[in-house]
Amino acid sequence: MLVPPDLETPLLLLDEARMQRNIVRMQARMNELGVRFRPHVKTSKCPQVVARQLAAGAQGITVSTLKEAERFFADGITDILYAVAIAPAKFDHAMRLARQGLQLTLLVESVAAAEALARHGHTHGHCHAVLIEVDTDGHRSGIRPDDPLLASVAQALRAEQGKGARVAGVMTHAGSSYALCDPDALATMAEQERAGCVSAAERLRAAGHACEIVSVGSTPTALSARSLHGVTEVRAGVYVFFDLVMAGVGVCSRDEIAISVLCSVIGHRPAAGRVITDAGWMAMSRDRGTQNQKHDFGYGAVCDVDGQPIDMLAFSDANQEHGVLQWSGGAGVDLEQRFPIGSRLRIVPNHACATAAQFERYTVLSADDRIVEWPRFGGW
Amino acid sequence: MLVPPDLETPLLLLDEARMQRNIVRMQARMNELGVRFRPHVKTSKCPQVVARQLAAGAQGITVSTLKEAERFFADGITDILYAVAIAPAKFDHAMRLARQGLQLTLLVESVAAAEALARHGHTHGHCHAVLIEVDTDGHRSGIRPDDPLLASVAQALRAEQGKGARVAGVMTHAGSSYALCDPDALATMAEQERAGCVSAAERLRAAGHACEIVSVGSTPTALSARSLHGVTEVRAGVYVFFDLVMAGVGVCSRDEIAISVLCSVIGHRPAAGRVITDAGWMAMSRDRGTQNQKHDFGYGAVCDVDGQPIDMLAFSDANQEHGVLQWSGGAGVDLEQRFPIGSRLRIVPNHACATAAQFERYTVLSADDRIVEWPRFGGW
Repeated sequence: MLVPPDLETPLLLLDEARMQRNIVRMQARMNELGVRFRPHVKTSKCPQVVARQLAAGAQGITVSTLKEAERFFADGITDILYAVAIAPAKFDHAMRLARQGLQLTLLVESVAAAEALARHGHTHGHCHAVLIEVDTDGHRSGIRPDDPLLASVAQALRAEQGKGARVAGVMTHAGSSYALCDPDALATMAEQERAGCVSAAERLRAAGHACEIVSVGSTPTALSARSLHGVTEVRAGVYVFFDLVMAGVGVCSRDEIAISVLCSVIGHRPAAGRVITDAGWMAMSRDRGTQNQKHDFGYGAVCDVDGQPIDMLAFSDANQEHGVLQWSGGAGVDLEQRFPIGSRLRIVPNHACATAAQFERYTVLSADDRIVEWPRFGGW
Repeated sequence: MLVPPDLETPLLLLDEARMQRNIVRMQARMNELGVRFRPHVKTSKCPQVVARQLAAGAQGITVSTLKEAERFFADGITDILYAVAIAPAKFDHAMRLARQGLQLTLLVESVAAAEALARHGHTHGHCHAVLIEVDTDGHRSGIRPDDPLLASVAQALRAEQGKGARVAGVMTHAGSSYALCDPDALATMAEQERAGCVSAAERLRAAGHACEIVSVGSTPTALSARSLHGVTEVRAGVYVFFDLVMAGVGVCSRDEIAISVLCSVIGHRPAAGRVITDAGWMAMSRDRGTQNQKHDFGYGAVCDVDGQPIDMLAFSDANQEHGVLQWSGGAGVDLEQRFPIGSRLRIVPNHACATAAQFERYTVLSADDRIVEWPRFGGW
């Protein structure tokens, strides 16, 4: 559909039909592999988006902040995994939400946090449901499946006779899959993520812990896994919109990316071959996620107002409210004529989570050909 | 003052006393040089901060979006410069604000925009007050002082017998001052900015335009100028908080930086010498502004909870809600003991405008030793 000419820029466009296809594609894959799907809502932070993920078959959600948990619980979602190792200053908040009826699952990756959480629960007569973070790729955090620490953390959670906390399961995130771009390497990484997490669960079960949840995921591995045997649920976030980084990884095409920033041309520097727009880093974010990929898109891929790529215009630099686009099509083109003042361009982002976070709403090109606004929230 | 132990992290701390010293320092300098000071509020987007800048002697404000203009006008500020070349889709919005009583000054840098704006004003019986953007350092946008285009743009503004728009003056921003770090080079750049903008004004006056406003500025040049002869007003934004980039430029010390992100330790990877916190790039922004400076601070400078630098801990990597701090103090230190789970750190940002934009409020360590919250807004 056409973008109306009177919209003030910059704004964040969301193509609902594309998003819906992304949602359906992921859910179909999860159904095929026979696992529950628990989407990570840190990407959209938008009730309307999450409602569509649930309608397609998702069961519960994953969040990156307690604010997300609080907001989506207020919207009626009662099964939420907070997938960042919890800091003690957040224990009270988590307990408050659980006592209001939220089935909230927490994450720890150390004996110290496990002990503190069990003590907190015991002191307040509350039993925290907790996953232990497993490291399956040396990416960032978690405990190796074969590390004896795993059993120690589980033991620490049960320190107060299991009254303060319980070992609900294990969770891993193969974040290093973002650095891959080969289908076989991705499938291998997905298998490594699965096998590592399942093996951690088995070790804990052998030690007498129920460990009913085995949670894995990232968009690249979810879309590359050939088997998820032993896994009970998969998490993925960015697939809902996709972005240039995911296209670089190879798990989507550029045509599947559902969000873009609409901007206006506000100036030219013909001698330097530059076009200036009103979408700077405040609109795009400073994320340069494609920098180390095969194709570096600068601050995003430049398209015309209908979304057709303009490959000879590169988003080379950004100030707070200025985007600098560099023309590489030679001096024979009159940039002021080709991209006149006030003409509009669409910029496809490197990283959907980062760019969307710069906006308070989505301007939705709806599946039934209307323009509607969906709110999103940020902060903590 | 001490930071209370029960605050949920991450949050954005603002040291009010430091901020007040920064405000006083800049205003004193402007008074000494005999020019009006019009602070750029894109850095704080906070009514309480801007009220203190005005109380110290600032006259009017500079904004980077019409939303800022609208919000601060609603707060009673009636003299506002929108210092980004305006896109035609924003003409109506600007006129609406002006008709409500806001003395709003706009910016153009092309004949096309000048013509469109004059036509818009004429059509609606409104006279837009407009500055012409001057390029004094080849940084990004604007017209060179000696370019005949300057007079053409002024002429285009008066196309409708001056009924649709008027040439209120000229404006420049020596943004390339951010790349400098030598006091003499900064003073030279400040003089280049001044001389170029004044010369542009003189050319326009010689061509019969009143051109009463000569507006220059950036934090580095404002603090480095030795004379501002011929300049009528100076703009600067980031000085109100300062940041690591400005410390690298040499216009502040690290002790003068007024904002920091408070975070909690949530994990360790002892073998890799890493400490994990709950302030990732969502809290810090992806701004890597010190990357090309003498000292690259990664995603920010790590300090203890009282603000004392911990130089052996570098903020080397970030995920959405995880900060990865790399220890360089050798293997002899037990990181889990030295930075226990739940202990708090403060991260001083590379770029105050970018980091502050990630938050909805400032948690203020007030000058009278209380903790208060000041809201900030974002978006367009």
